[in-house]
Amino acid sequence: MKLVTFETNDGVKAVGVLKKDSVLSLNKLLKQPDLSMMVLVEKGISYINEIRNEVDSSEGDYSLKEVKILPPLERPKKIVCVGNNYMDHCREQKIKPPERPLIFSKWPSCVVSYNDHIELPKESKQVDYEAELGVIIQTGGKHINREEVSDYIFGYVAVNDISARDVQFSDGQWIRGKSFDTFMPTGPFILTADEVEEPQKLSIKTSLNGKILQNSNTAEMIFDISYIVSYLSEGFTFESGDLIATGTPNGVGVFRHPQIFLQAGDMIEVSIEGLGSLKNTCVER
Amino acid sequence: MKLVTFETNDGVKAVGVLKKDSVLSLNKLLKQPDLSMMVLVEKGISYINEIRNEVDSSEGDYSLKEVKILPPLERPKKIVCVGNNYMDHCREQKIKPPERPLIFSKWPSCVVSYNDHIELPKESKQVDYEAELGVIIQTGGKHINREEVSDYIFGYVAVNDISARDVQFSDGQWIRGKSFDTFMPTGPFILTADEVEEPQKLSIKTSLNGKILQNSNTAEMIFDISYIVSYLSEGFTFESGDLIATGTPNGVGVFRHPQIFLQAGDMIEVSIEGLGSLKNTCVER
Repeated sequence: MKLVTFETNDGVKAVGVLKKDSVLSLNKLLKQPDLSMMVLVEKGISYINEIRNEVDSSEGDYSLKEVKILPPLERPKKIVCVGNNYMDHCREQKIKPPERPLIFSKWPSCVVSYNDHIELPKESKQVDYEAELGVIIQTGGKHINREEVSDYIFGYVAVNDISARDVQFSDGQWIRGKSFDTFMPTGPFILTADEVEEPQKLSIKTSLNGKILQNSNTAEMIFDISYIVSYLSEGFTFESGDLIATGTPNGVGVFRHPQIFLQAGDMIEVSIEGLGSLKNTCVER
Repeated sequence: MKLVTFETNDGVKAVGVLKKDSVLSLNKLLKQPDLSMMVLVEKGISYINEIRNEVDSSEGDYSLKEVKILPPLERPKKIVCVGNNYMDHCREQKIKPPERPLIFSKWPSCVVSYNDHIELPKESKQVDYEAELGVIIQTGGKHINREEVSDYIFGYVAVNDISARDVQFSDGQWIRGKSFDTFMPTGPFILTADEVEEPQKLSIKTSLNGKILQNSNTAEMIFDISYIVSYLSEGFTFESGDLIATGTPNGVGVFRHPQIFLQAGDMIEVSIEGLGSLKNTCVER
């Protein structure tokens, strides 16, 4: 099921299912005016299965033109990011692959949607893109076995991990340079995990103004999703509504020759197989 | 007003005002069963002022022995931490004071309460303490002038920024070593900002099993609260319910000779003038 958060012309927020050219409001269908994606994630895939027949047999409520698509999960409880997690990305930096996952974070306040502007902050001259497969946790837990990780996953989403490279590297700690407002486009939708047969075999691409700059496959991940979740859950409790950004493949702007950084007017697009196309235009702040 | 989040014997959570030996339930007083600290923070100090007379003229509902004190704000929306922000802490590390605030983060899932156990994770042999003044943001905003920062602050809370030094330094990025479960004791209460005359003149101490190991004053901060909020709000939107941990003074365990790290059975206590005493006992996980 392709799940979106959206706003109608009259300013009402809702959770919906993306149909071919329309959106079916789950708030209407289920008569739950307060339903949000966070609530749906907490209910989990088993709930999605319960409502599937009703969803499949219902027509959409709004044409896509009538609604504004919001970030599917507007404020993840925590954002866990994995650095240097693609073999090809390590090769382009001429670094050894890490011996254990390199973990960093972004603040939830930087999450924006498909079609939202990426604001280039005046603090930076080096704003970069990173296509990443996002994983939404449905069930809280700790000490999760690798074999059981799939039970904890609600769905997948395309993520663009925007980074102000000059701030990131001069600060040393990455969070400030990775968390400027608008620095985490996500969407347009969450694809529920039951419809993703093999998350470690998805093509993942970035194009800038139509030119392909990243072109890889999630099979290139050094630490796969089951390893990352199991590893981290030794020390941390995962909570329903956490988002993991699983790392980016080679081709980011800062390691290219010559370097490429985002400029006002640029259209940057992350495409992940089955997860749609996450397009955003850059503006000066 | 000293505000707590607490749980009664019958498992009901509520927000309360700490009176001399008792707790007054605001959920009861205001007939709002769903009131949480997050809701109260969003309403802000002006709401606190509206209810002050009623609070002052009411008796407590529970003796302190009848309730369990929970973290005053259980899940801050984001946790912003400032590193190396005390002159005396820079001197003990023999480093120059930073030219701009060094920003890092902890995940909200590591927040625990006064009296909760600090679990020593098996991933670390070097678990350390850091007394810090916590600042709770009440009003969202961006581009906040230094002169106006006090309007954005709901209150203050004692924080112990627990760190697994070996993990922190070997990872390079600090978030994993700073965010193991139970690594952010906070409390016991939030003191509302209207009752803190001069937040930059508060004594701040840590004692370990009764022996004082940190003993400084928030006047030693290199970047004061108004600077930190104003500086960061250039790039980030602050949201109601964000928590800023403003850095720790000298005397942390890792820079002592000989080094001191927390052991099972240790009782670690952070005391900040006016904000009470945050006591936690360490256990093996």
